[in-house]
Amino acid sequence: MKKTITLFFTLFIGYAQAQNADSVTIRKIYNEALANGKSYEWLRHLTKQVGPRLSGSTGAQKAVDWTKQVMEQQGFDRVFLQDVMVPHWVRGAKEEAFIHNGKQKITVPIAALGGSVATAAKGVEAGIIEVKTFPELRALGADKVKGKIVFFNRPMDPTKINTFEAYGGAVDQRANGATEAAKLGAVGAIVRSMTNVHDDNPHTGGMRYGTGVALIPTAAISTNGADLLSKLLAENPNLTFYFKQNCETLPDAKSYNVVGEIKGSEKPDEIIVVGGHLDSWDIAEGAHDDGSGCVQSIEVLRIMKSLGIKPKRTIRAVMFMNEENGLRGGVQYADLAKKNNEKHIAAIESDNGGFTPRGFGIVGTPEQREKVMPWKPLLAPYGLTDIGAGGGGADIGPLAQLGTVLFGFKPDSQRYFDYHHTAVDKFEAISQRELELGAASMAALVYLLDQYGL
Amino acid sequence: MKKTITLFFTLFIGYAQAQNADSVTIRKIYNEALANGKSYEWLRHLTKQVGPRLSGSTGAQKAVDWTKQVMEQQGFDRVFLQDVMVPHWVRGAKEEAFIHNGKQKITVPIAALGGSVATAAKGVEAGIIEVKTFPELRALGADKVKGKIVFFNRPMDPTKINTFEAYGGAVDQRANGATEAAKLGAVGAIVRSMTNVHDDNPHTGGMRYGTGVALIPTAAISTNGADLLSKLLAENPNLTFYFKQNCETLPDAKSYNVVGEIKGSEKPDEIIVVGGHLDSWDIAEGAHDDGSGCVQSIEVLRIMKSLGIKPKRTIRAVMFMNEENGLRGGVQYADLAKKNNEKHIAAIESDNGGFTPRGFGIVGTPEQREKVMPWKPLLAPYGLTDIGAGGGGADIGPLAQLGTVLFGFKPDSQRYFDYHHTAVDKFEAISQRELELGAASMAALVYLLDQYGL
Repeated sequence: MKKTITLFFTLFIGYAQAQNADSVTIRKIYNEALANGKSYEWLRHLTKQVGPRLSGSTGAQKAVDWTKQVMEQQGFDRVFLQDVMVPHWVRGAKEEAFIHNGKQKITVPIAALGGSVATAAKGVEAGIIEVKTFPELRALGADKVKGKIVFFNRPMDPTKINTFEAYGGAVDQRANGATEAAKLGAVGAIVRSMTNVHDDNPHTGGMRYGTGVALIPTAAISTNGADLLSKLLAENPNLTFYFKQNCETLPDAKSYNVVGEIKGSEKPDEIIVVGGHLDSWDIAEGAHDDGSGCVQSIEVLRIMKSLGIKPKRTIRAVMFMNEENGLRGGVQYADLAKKNNEKHIAAIESDNGGFTPRGFGIVGTPEQREKVMPWKPLLAPYGLTDIGAGGGGADIGPLAQLGTVLFGFKPDSQRYFDYHHTAVDKFEAISQRELELGAASMAALVYLLDQYGL
Repeated sequence: MKKTITLFFTLFIGYAQAQNADSVTIRKIYNEALANGKSYEWLRHLTKQVGPRLSGSTGAQKAVDWTKQVMEQQGFDRVFLQDVMVPHWVRGAKEEAFIHNGKQKITVPIAALGGSVATAAKGVEAGIIEVKTFPELRALGADKVKGKIVFFNRPMDPTKINTFEAYGGAVDQRANGATEAAKLGAVGAIVRSMTNVHDDNPHTGGMRYGTGVALIPTAAISTNGADLLSKLLAENPNLTFYFKQNCETLPDAKSYNVVGEIKGSEKPDEIIVVGGHLDSWDIAEGAHDDGSGCVQSIEVLRIMKSLGIKPKRTIRAVMFMNEENGLRGGVQYADLAKKNNEKHIAAIESDNGGFTPRGFGIVGTPEQREKVMPWKPLLAPYGLTDIGAGGGGADIGPLAQLGTVLFGFKPDSQRYFDYHHTAVDKFEAISQRELELGAASMAALVYLLDQYGL
């Protein structure tokens, strides 16, 4: 019994000492991010000097070159590119749209959805029919829809506390609205922007055409525009809607994932990834989506280096290409990892904006999640209290098939969709402290993953 | 034994049913705030139509009249004013300041601190001496300080996770800097703005003169201005600083707390207060500080009424006057409560900005705090996880002497000092969802306090 008690105390003291050492290191990580952080100035460059960087664009190439250069300047052990062919969609000249109500022509702000075809050169004008759901659309039938434009106007549910849930409950309209409308002979699809705010910014985003349907042009309309259109339609169901867009899909282009690495001192073959996506929509500076995730990921490695933390395992910052309209970078990264027999024990993605940290979602087995739970008291002082099963991230998703445990960084979600995929997702929308706290939170998790594995 | 088990299960089932009913009501409270909330439009009016409202100003009187009217229109059971005499400090014409460095005159942004005296009409120009702390100042001694302006340049500590802690560690310079400088014969005091951001906004705020010292003029300088001044001083310790300000303290003015009330159905003599302060600094619209707290408090009562929640106890929304430069409203409220033998069981203040809710600080006995703990699972789904001992709020502080348990609403602190006491604390700095979530959080706590007491 005495022996057992002694053993217990030895273990307990060992555990307490380890926790204390970890707590000191994590405090240093936050101090470094908050007092000497580089992420904010990097983001300024990425948004203001590089700017929009949709896959295949010159902006995307500049972003590749620049982030590679930044990581080289930081003296990471290895910085390299991974080739990946990406879709190359271009918007062309700015869209035009108006509501034609009797003699009135009321201009409304729209943005073609990524992947959409153009309208005819003279634009398309037709009657417009408002629906909230696909079943409602189908119930109307081809008779009522043929030759019309379909207006998908189901708002994000404001009562969802997590705005990503509300987004999930509305985004089918953007992704598949054109296909569902085309099945019934519609000539166009206009989709309410995915946001809870009422303003004049159209929110673009990805869409796909189903097989075997006509490719009809589709665009997002600002929420104010959608509300106006809905109101006018209620008064005059016979009004018409005009829009003209000039986008096209060019042949796939060559692009790159950008990878920076600190080699592990004990288990170099075990890899921990921290990443975000380098591409953004063409109308946005991509500050929250996802410049933040990129500069935070580079900052994680910089913090470790500057504090002299020599990780046991190999830590990689990955700037994934093409999350927005193809996910080719994420798929390619996992394919190469598989081909090269790399062992990725964990991957963390930051792609929910540069907001105040609240926690991490974990995709793994219950046993793997349990291994994380003892770290909670170490992270709680920094506001990281929402730690448990949850989503990982689009780019790291394909790594799951290799057995990698995925972590999605969860910042506060309230303001994300104020900016998402719009012209107002720009540097000025970023709080330096919130961004830096995010970087520190990711660094703290990387540190613990490296110390203890999973 | 069987009886005990039966009793246990009866109690347990009763408890579970009560928790479930509470959970449903709290969900309704959030739905109402997020789908039909009025706080955001009220705040728009208070900031844009009423505008700045320093104690004693016409803006403050307008704010009294307007919030009274809003609460009357909501049909609360009783809306009334409480007279209170308040300090009446006025800024006068905008300040001027420059660094006089050889032949260069470099203009820098300053704002007189509330309560400061004016400079002489032609301004004051003198050598300027930078210090970080009062001990450092005292170590210099009267020889080096006499006839000079003292420049207090200790920044808020960026490594503090809660920015209010960092503020607490720097604000002595603003509150007492002039007094400490005057003791050594200084002719003015310039204080670095209380913020972590680097920009051109001077942050005003309250200061007091100690007894028996000369009243020397004092102002805040923007952080960019402070950094520049510090840099130039390092190069040329003999440069001079010029500033001119035109503020004065007029005789006390009559003003009011504004109180709206829903009468309790079972225990009308037990009062629960929810409040914020109605006054703001003269250079600010007072959106975060503290228009948010005012409109959220009115919204709490509106939500209860609109959901048909008939409180057992009396619920009061209180717009306190004069938090910024006197706290006269808070003191008066408690004095009247005492005089009228009112029993205030709890008071909640929102005065930390209209940001995403994170919890509540509680000022009460350990037993009282323990009574709140079973509510945690009801509040956690809304991100309210930081609930425990902590600060209440300045205005409700004087109620503590009556045995009232105080609750400080704790929103996320990261961005508060970006705006605090500056011209950028305006409506545009508010996120509608964050504001509404705060109102709902306060309503949920009021609901639980009313249901279960303390």
